[in-house]
Amino acid sequence: MNLDDLTKRQGAWLHGDGPESDVVISSRIRLARNIKGFPFVSHANSTDLKAIEQTAVDAVTSVLPENTFACLDFHAISRDDAMFLQERQMVSADFAENVIPRSLVMAQDESYSIMINEEDHLRIQTVASGLVLKELWEKTNKLDDLIESKLDYAFDEGYGYLTACPSNVGTGLRASVMMHLPALIETDEMAKVMRSLEKMNFEVRGMYGEGSRALGELFQVSNQKTLGVTEEQIVEQLSDVIPCILNYERMAREELLEKNRDGLLDRCHRALGTLQSARLTSMEEAMKFLSSIRLGVRMGLFKDVSVELVNELLMNIQPVHLRKLAQMRGDGSNDDASLRARYIRERLAGLGSKDEL
Amino acid sequence: MNLDDLTKRQGAWLHGDGPESDVVISSRIRLARNIKGFPFVSHANSTDLKAIEQTAVDAVTSVLPENTFACLDFHAISRDDAMFLQERQMVSADFAENVIPRSLVMAQDESYSIMINEEDHLRIQTVASGLVLKELWEKTNKLDDLIESKLDYAFDEGYGYLTACPSNVGTGLRASVMMHLPALIETDEMAKVMRSLEKMNFEVRGMYGEGSRALGELFQVSNQKTLGVTEEQIVEQLSDVIPCILNYERMAREELLEKNRDGLLDRCHRALGTLQSARLTSMEEAMKFLSSIRLGVRMGLFKDVSVELVNELLMNIQPVHLRKLAQMRGDGSNDDASLRARYIRERLAGLGSKDEL
Repeated sequence: MNLDDLTKRQGAWLHGDGPESDVVISSRIRLARNIKGFPFVSHANSTDLKAIEQTAVDAVTSVLPENTFACLDFHAISRDDAMFLQERQMVSADFAENVIPRSLVMAQDESYSIMINEEDHLRIQTVASGLVLKELWEKTNKLDDLIESKLDYAFDEGYGYLTACPSNVGTGLRASVMMHLPALIETDEMAKVMRSLEKMNFEVRGMYGEGSRALGELFQVSNQKTLGVTEEQIVEQLSDVIPCILNYERMAREELLEKNRDGLLDRCHRALGTLQSARLTSMEEAMKFLSSIRLGVRMGLFKDVSVELVNELLMNIQPVHLRKLAQMRGDGSNDDASLRARYIRERLAGLGSKDEL
Repeated sequence: MNLDDLTKRQGAWLHGDGPESDVVISSRIRLARNIKGFPFVSHANSTDLKAIEQTAVDAVTSVLPENTFACLDFHAISRDDAMFLQERQMVSADFAENVIPRSLVMAQDESYSIMINEEDHLRIQTVASGLVLKELWEKTNKLDDLIESKLDYAFDEGYGYLTACPSNVGTGLRASVMMHLPALIETDEMAKVMRSLEKMNFEVRGMYGEGSRALGELFQVSNQKTLGVTEEQIVEQLSDVIPCILNYERMAREELLEKNRDGLLDRCHRALGTLQSARLTSMEEAMKFLSSIRLGVRMGLFKDVSVELVNELLMNIQPVHLRKLAQMRGDGSNDDASLRARYIRERLAGLGSKDEL
């Protein structure tokens, strides 16, 4: 797989469709798995790590249909390519920055990725657009079964799957949902929602940046507990709580429309107009405006702007994507703020209902 | 003269042309005159005021060519119309808000206005686009001579023209130049320039709002001394100092272009894009952005935006103009911020070199 080709399209999980996609960007499930008979990554020497990598790569690639995935030796790829795949959320920051023998197996449509020698021997991740936790769990379970047919997982009858960190022991499962919550932020209700979720043992964090000032107003809600519950219970508990947050966000949007319609329209139109004309923009500012544009699209303000385009911009204005795209276009500027503004301007040129004054 | 008709065009002084019009908006000259044999306005009773008004109106209108001017009885016009003429800078705030018998004689092209019963019996004002103080003084002098041919001015061989306020005694002349100084503000040099001018006995003030935070970055520079100098000296002294400020501003623009070209382009393009898309905008914000657009036009960034259009917007977004225009268009909104944003959006729609990315 040529990584440059990936810049030409977005992962399937960024198509902006699926259930509840007015608020839910994507659902994500991750399994932590280790192979019996090998030490955990943190205790393994170089020979062990290479053996684990070889064993896992062989098993995984043997069960996947040909020409649907790529297998990348992370020890051999450039730092830029590693960061590029991190920006695409195919690998974790730790995995991208590590120096030990490690590999990535990923679907060409980016619907799953398997990190080998991350914290655990295998980290199996699946992701899809919209709120589809149950379907995604079924898919993940099948993928896990397929791999398990070729590998002997470290498993204890009492504890369940054994993992490098005790917090993952048991199911080794983490389910998460990425949500766009601009109205809860604007109405100052986000902090309250976060506190409630944390009391119920869900973790909430900004996708980019911390706390309620998260860039792009994107939040990831996930389970904290992995032990003493079944996989189905984890998925069900998260599936039960997300509709509550969804409703809060939708009610907040209604409230804003009712109480300050002009202000809301101003925010959305102004965001598009500014990004269509700015010559310099920081990552922070661009994400703030893209959040407003996403809201505008969902409110039906910009008929010719798609959520998929907003997602593409969100992905491509990240530093490594930005530079890769600029190189491909022969854009020689060294200044990220200028490159970013130009890229966004080109992609948004002529869009937005200018006639609807 | 139907005041509504005035909204369809701008005064000649707002055409955006004339010498040094990259920085100088307009030149203005004002003469304070009183009629011999009548008390000053502040000491006159109602009978006196009416007699002064009648005498002045008769004299002035008898010397002006027919169909080139309007004579308005300010006692009879509505408060809105009075404010409207103040926004157009045809009358002072005091004159607009006063309740005594008073009249305005103004040129249809708004090149001069004569307030009768302002602080002095007559306040003769002329105004023109660009830096044209000497030509304007000649024109004003001729107009003054014409009126003096019909009126006996209060004049003292020692002091010169006698005026209600001692600060105007002598020539009764105040010459002023309105300048657009965005680069001096951006480079933090405006305060220094203001201090220097004040040391040289020139007065500098923001056209709208005070100090270096003047709205629209527009400043009026004028003489303070009216006694002990001839009219020609006043005009000459001001004509001598303006080119220094002009040069400072031009140098500051060059410096910005050299040191922070992207930042400057960003500021100008972003201003246009924001005003083309905003749904709400305050007077303060709109003037800030119009200042940046004016700068962009002068730098050749927006080939299809004229300075005259910027001037028109600057005039028409003022509260009374805004409401008058909205009424004429049947725009029923009661919210100034919304009316203002819509008006600007309509006038700027499709402009700006979108192709030049």
